[in-house]
Amino acid sequence: MRLSRYFLPVLKETPSDAQIASHRLMLRAGMIRQQAAGIYSWLPLGFRVLEKLQRIVHEEQQRAGHIPVLMPTLQPAELWRESGRFDAYGKELLRIRDRHDRDMLYGPTNEEMITDIFRSGVSSYKSLPMTLYHIQWKFRDEVRPRFGVMRGREFLMKDGYNFDLTYEDSMHAYNRHMASYLRTYERMGLKAIPMRADSGPIGGDDTHEFLVLADTGESEVFYDSAVTELTLGDRAVDYDDRAQLEAIKAEWTTPYARTDETHDAALFEQIPEDRRKVGRGIEVGQIFYFGIKYSEPMGAMVADETGAKVPVHMGSHGIGVSRLVGALIEAHHDDKGIKWPEAVAPFGAGIVNLKVGDPDVDAACAQIYAALSAAGVDPLLDDRDERAGQKFATMELIGLPWRITVGPRGLKNGVVELTCRATGESEELSAEAACLKLAGIFAGL
Amino acid sequence: MRLSRYFLPVLKETPSDAQIASHRLMLRAGMIRQQAAGIYSWLPLGFRVLEKLQRIVHEEQQRAGHIPVLMPTLQPAELWRESGRFDAYGKELLRIRDRHDRDMLYGPTNEEMITDIFRSGVSSYKSLPMTLYHIQWKFRDEVRPRFGVMRGREFLMKDGYNFDLTYEDSMHAYNRHMASYLRTYERMGLKAIPMRADSGPIGGDDTHEFLVLADTGESEVFYDSAVTELTLGDRAVDYDDRAQLEAIKAEWTTPYARTDETHDAALFEQIPEDRRKVGRGIEVGQIFYFGIKYSEPMGAMVADETGAKVPVHMGSHGIGVSRLVGALIEAHHDDKGIKWPEAVAPFGAGIVNLKVGDPDVDAACAQIYAALSAAGVDPLLDDRDERAGQKFATMELIGLPWRITVGPRGLKNGVVELTCRATGESEELSAEAACLKLAGIFAGL
Repeated sequence: MRLSRYFLPVLKETPSDAQIASHRLMLRAGMIRQQAAGIYSWLPLGFRVLEKLQRIVHEEQQRAGHIPVLMPTLQPAELWRESGRFDAYGKELLRIRDRHDRDMLYGPTNEEMITDIFRSGVSSYKSLPMTLYHIQWKFRDEVRPRFGVMRGREFLMKDGYNFDLTYEDSMHAYNRHMASYLRTYERMGLKAIPMRADSGPIGGDDTHEFLVLADTGESEVFYDSAVTELTLGDRAVDYDDRAQLEAIKAEWTTPYARTDETHDAALFEQIPEDRRKVGRGIEVGQIFYFGIKYSEPMGAMVADETGAKVPVHMGSHGIGVSRLVGALIEAHHDDKGIKWPEAVAPFGAGIVNLKVGDPDVDAACAQIYAALSAAGVDPLLDDRDERAGQKFATMELIGLPWRITVGPRGLKNGVVELTCRATGESEELSAEAACLKLAGIFAGL
Repeated sequence: MRLSRYFLPVLKETPSDAQIASHRLMLRAGMIRQQAAGIYSWLPLGFRVLEKLQRIVHEEQQRAGHIPVLMPTLQPAELWRESGRFDAYGKELLRIRDRHDRDMLYGPTNEEMITDIFRSGVSSYKSLPMTLYHIQWKFRDEVRPRFGVMRGREFLMKDGYNFDLTYEDSMHAYNRHMASYLRTYERMGLKAIPMRADSGPIGGDDTHEFLVLADTGESEVFYDSAVTELTLGDRAVDYDDRAQLEAIKAEWTTPYARTDETHDAALFEQIPEDRRKVGRGIEVGQIFYFGIKYSEPMGAMVADETGAKVPVHMGSHGIGVSRLVGALIEAHHDDKGIKWPEAVAPFGAGIVNLKVGDPDVDAACAQIYAALSAAGVDPLLDDRDERAGQKFATMELIGLPWRITVGPRGLKNGVVELTCRATGESEELSAEAACLKLAGIFAGL
């Protein structure tokens, strides 16, 4: 993309009402615009990041064998009356009346609707196991929306639902979700720790939240630092291999890691003192086994091997996609702006033309632009007639992982400058070498 | 995808309340499920088609230089009070009140919000021309939703908005949209004809609707058959070339083509009689120049070359993405089911295993599956233990463009059967030759 033809409304001033770094930086970098309390437009730069996150979530869900669908944002009240939640849910549920005075709601979650889809289409255990998911906009009418997209009212979420014949099968689905979530966050450049969560009135241990460590997190977290060393890395995960998934769960959930809701001081004290950590975390996902809570009242039954009708075991599993954009920035920024990990950066590299109008510099920029585009690096070329200082400041603010600076002096010596946003380090090398280096970095993504 | 692990709830009976072919076939093929009047879930097969359409729309919009954003589904009433539409819009506007009793609405369109985004981020003519678009769910509270996704209440639409300094620039944006829409529909395998539309109280000629000819269309259309012969084909379109785009517009709009709203019987009579056609059409898009209708009252002004503040010229341009799924089926089906064009088919080919459990047949199917997957054909393998007749009927119903049938008798002779859904023709050839043929067909898509 050429910046002269793009829409990147960066702000010079820091917005006074934004309390946390990610909110400030998303406004300043022209990623979002607030349209109402907790409701945002995603401007071009922000939309690009949101799209990259969605793609990663889709890929990892489908790799785990989960099937994408798309449910509508509005739901009829009848479905929620079947589960009892239409009245039980608090004011966070946005209730709507249509022109025929029918009660509807803007879905904050989809357990009822997916159960309805399941019961209408599946009647035998032979169709199981099955996990359906979608990525769709949700609404929760928060009394006090804040922190930008981190606690908005209209938010994008991936929610998935497993349907299984037995508790054991449902636990395999639970573990599939845990492993696929770990991969998802790792690919995005995030370390998210599964922490035992509060399952509320349903009971059982079978829910974990995934938290990203950040000073601005809404939850206090207590953990064994050993858990932060874990990584899936390149290991091959076979999502049909129950033993492997069970082992992955054990690896991640054996070290102590809990939020204040489930914290157990006595257990925490047993960790060696140098590994005992207290911090704050941002919740970016949750997995939850809830058994027959919806399938029984809503009649989602299948015939088992003996022909008997039994309610299916279910769980629901969510990733906060729009919230992740904020969490990523909380985890990756400095005074000057955002520092995107390569896999989720809106553009892979910025090209700064230091002398727009100089035929050699313009030609070199065009060549680099073409080479990076061909290599899938997806560059943003700053071809505006602005001061170098302003161009650098913009690039640092929007946080592209790499910058290639092209000026007449360097070109005379056959070099351009390649700067890494994460480390701040620069090197001089030929344009060809710079492009080759970036092509190599982005080839694996 | 292996059908044994997929969710494809096909119906044997024809749903009695579905009046038109596309609605019936989408229900029977397990593409959608109605959740409330005019509100649908997209089941796995339907979601795949919707995704393919979205990708084509995105690609063609960005090829034309248009910039993607994403606006929220809910909008604050204040914005619509600025334009006067909050009160003026009829009952199709779904008005909502949040927990703080603030008036909101579910956007049926986004002129106000995009104008707000523009005025907050652009102040100089130097940033122009600019076209922003998004693909987002909309809501129109139709009094009588019908015809499935063709006239639903919650629907997916691409809407784009151009911002230009002058009328002439805005007309160039208009022509860009016309050419890019023609390409978009052609890529999907649809012939959509731009027809002069009624611009309503604003006046002027500068609006066209795009209609797909179909007996079930809601509009009566009158046209010169010459217009149905036109095709962009492989011609290179330069979206910055004003003369070329003007010529494309002239080529498509010179032959008479109007809906009943703008029909002029006297003009129609001038067409040679053998080319004079009356039929029905489905509207799948509209482009519209409306000048300063929103920019003036909402203060979307830029400084021009002299420094004077002037309101920008705007237009809005829409493609009905979810409705297109229905239109495609209306245009491509027979008694047995859907006949997807390759570019938008949910899967490129079906593989029918005639003897599940036979090691040779299973192995041949697995090989073909792997080869087609590697070639990007995206096959659906029917590996269920069902009768051949039922498998064929399912494949014909869901309408995959190609079917490879693999059975023990054929394998003994070294052949499989390749069947084209569009023509019904079959040929026997080696598995390798069948895969190569399909790889070639899908390579260009």
